[in-house]
Amino acid sequence: MTSQELTHQIHLKNSFLCIGLDVDMDKIPKHLLNKEDPIFEFNKQIIDATHHLAVAYKPNTAFYEANGLKGWKSLTKTIRYLNNNYPEIFTIADAKRGDIGNTSKMYASAFLKDLDFDSITVSPYMGSDSVEPFLTFENKYVFLLALTSNKGSEDFQELVLDDNSGKLYEKVINMSKTWANNDKIMYVVGAKNTEEIGKIRKLVPNSYLLIPGVGAQGGNLKEICEYGLDKDFKLIVNSSRSIIYASPNDDFAKKASEAAKKIQNEMELIIDKL
Amino acid sequence: MTSQELTHQIHLKNSFLCIGLDVDMDKIPKHLLNKEDPIFEFNKQIIDATHHLAVAYKPNTAFYEANGLKGWKSLTKTIRYLNNNYPEIFTIADAKRGDIGNTSKMYASAFLKDLDFDSITVSPYMGSDSVEPFLTFENKYVFLLALTSNKGSEDFQELVLDDNSGKLYEKVINMSKTWANNDKIMYVVGAKNTEEIGKIRKLVPNSYLLIPGVGAQGGNLKEICEYGLDKDFKLIVNSSRSIIYASPNDDFAKKASEAAKKIQNEMELIIDKL
Repeated sequence: MTSQELTHQIHLKNSFLCIGLDVDMDKIPKHLLNKEDPIFEFNKQIIDATHHLAVAYKPNTAFYEANGLKGWKSLTKTIRYLNNNYPEIFTIADAKRGDIGNTSKMYASAFLKDLDFDSITVSPYMGSDSVEPFLTFENKYVFLLALTSNKGSEDFQELVLDDNSGKLYEKVINMSKTWANNDKIMYVVGAKNTEEIGKIRKLVPNSYLLIPGVGAQGGNLKEICEYGLDKDFKLIVNSSRSIIYASPNDDFAKKASEAAKKIQNEMELIIDKL
Repeated sequence: MTSQELTHQIHLKNSFLCIGLDVDMDKIPKHLLNKEDPIFEFNKQIIDATHHLAVAYKPNTAFYEANGLKGWKSLTKTIRYLNNNYPEIFTIADAKRGDIGNTSKMYASAFLKDLDFDSITVSPYMGSDSVEPFLTFENKYVFLLALTSNKGSEDFQELVLDDNSGKLYEKVINMSKTWANNDKIMYVVGAKNTEEIGKIRKLVPNSYLLIPGVGAQGGNLKEICEYGLDKDFKLIVNSSRSIIYASPNDDFAKKASEAAKKIQNEMELIIDKL
């Protein structure tokens, strides 16, 4: 789907919530373990119970790869289920890929063509030719890692460069704006420091930002919106664990829906005040 | 296997060749397409024909993911075939992963435990806590991306930092030396500029370097060795396309063996002169 359609959905649902499907076999309700594909069954019920409250879903590929072949089957079934039943949902493959050109082309084909995700997260370390192959698919997008929310983001992303171009993550953003098809680039921006979100918003006023880490990772929604949101709604805020593991019991989908509803309510209040 | 065993194998075989199994369905001999698993069949024949000339194999995960579920099956069968039949071979999952801690842990488990690779390539952009989960497995190693061989490596890796700590890739190397279990870190070093290899060798005199790009990517073996090799042989040089696609016909394995032999001969000459 196009980014315009995503914006339309945000208006319609009064929500810019993304639900992270980081599904760990050890954390899903025990009664699902008898099912043929417990992870897909879990995702299906979570999606059915929350799709009206969220605009995007973001499976993290690591959690699927950790289950080998079965995990890839669960991932494939999950994205197909989303695309077939909820075409209005924006899908993000949280894969953090990136390699030399001919290899990135393979990753891009795997996630954006075959699996048919709307977008993929990409690491910038290897530079322009490692990202550009992901930008050649119509109505498909890249979430480029700019500033992440983990402690280690300080190690390299926040290093200051000697040419007065600021910190490394700022250089990543500014340079990416010069690449071919840069209108397809969105940015991953950690919620650790909300002032930095404001700084990044100024660098890319017209780009979508994906903010992980509301909930378990501790980001504060109001502050994030103060710095990152504007009337164009070009913001997606992700929550994973606090929604999908809201309950370890049979009522997990209902509780996930309640947890998502609580965040969506907060978002609606924020949107109303704009 | 341990890095000591790898060094032993290099002595034994007079070779520090790694063969990249970047297998593209469009490039393998047509007669294999009738097989149940063409990619595994291709890999099996390549491995059987070249294992005595190489010390390591490096499947690039992108090429397998591009074939979806079937691709993961081919990758799984390939690593099992290597581990069961050639335990003296060092295996590298060229996956370029890296994410927040709990996610990197999942990737590490997938590649180093379940698939049982000896090592994995990891991107440093997200910092220490994104790499450390990969360093907690006994006798398993990380190839950290330092300086890559593609054009885009100039974009960020070669940026100069303002604190007199040199270029970003040097900072990545120097900082990684302070991380827990850093004795398990090896480095990916592009062969684009052989003088940089010498510089990196000085930063990490006791670490293995993995140099991609001899052959199709144009690296020059003699120059690489002049800067990167010492009597400890802590160097692995990778070649992919020039070996595995040496012939598009039925004789592909024989031709791959000849191409590998040619490189191994060059390596033996270089080793003899040390």
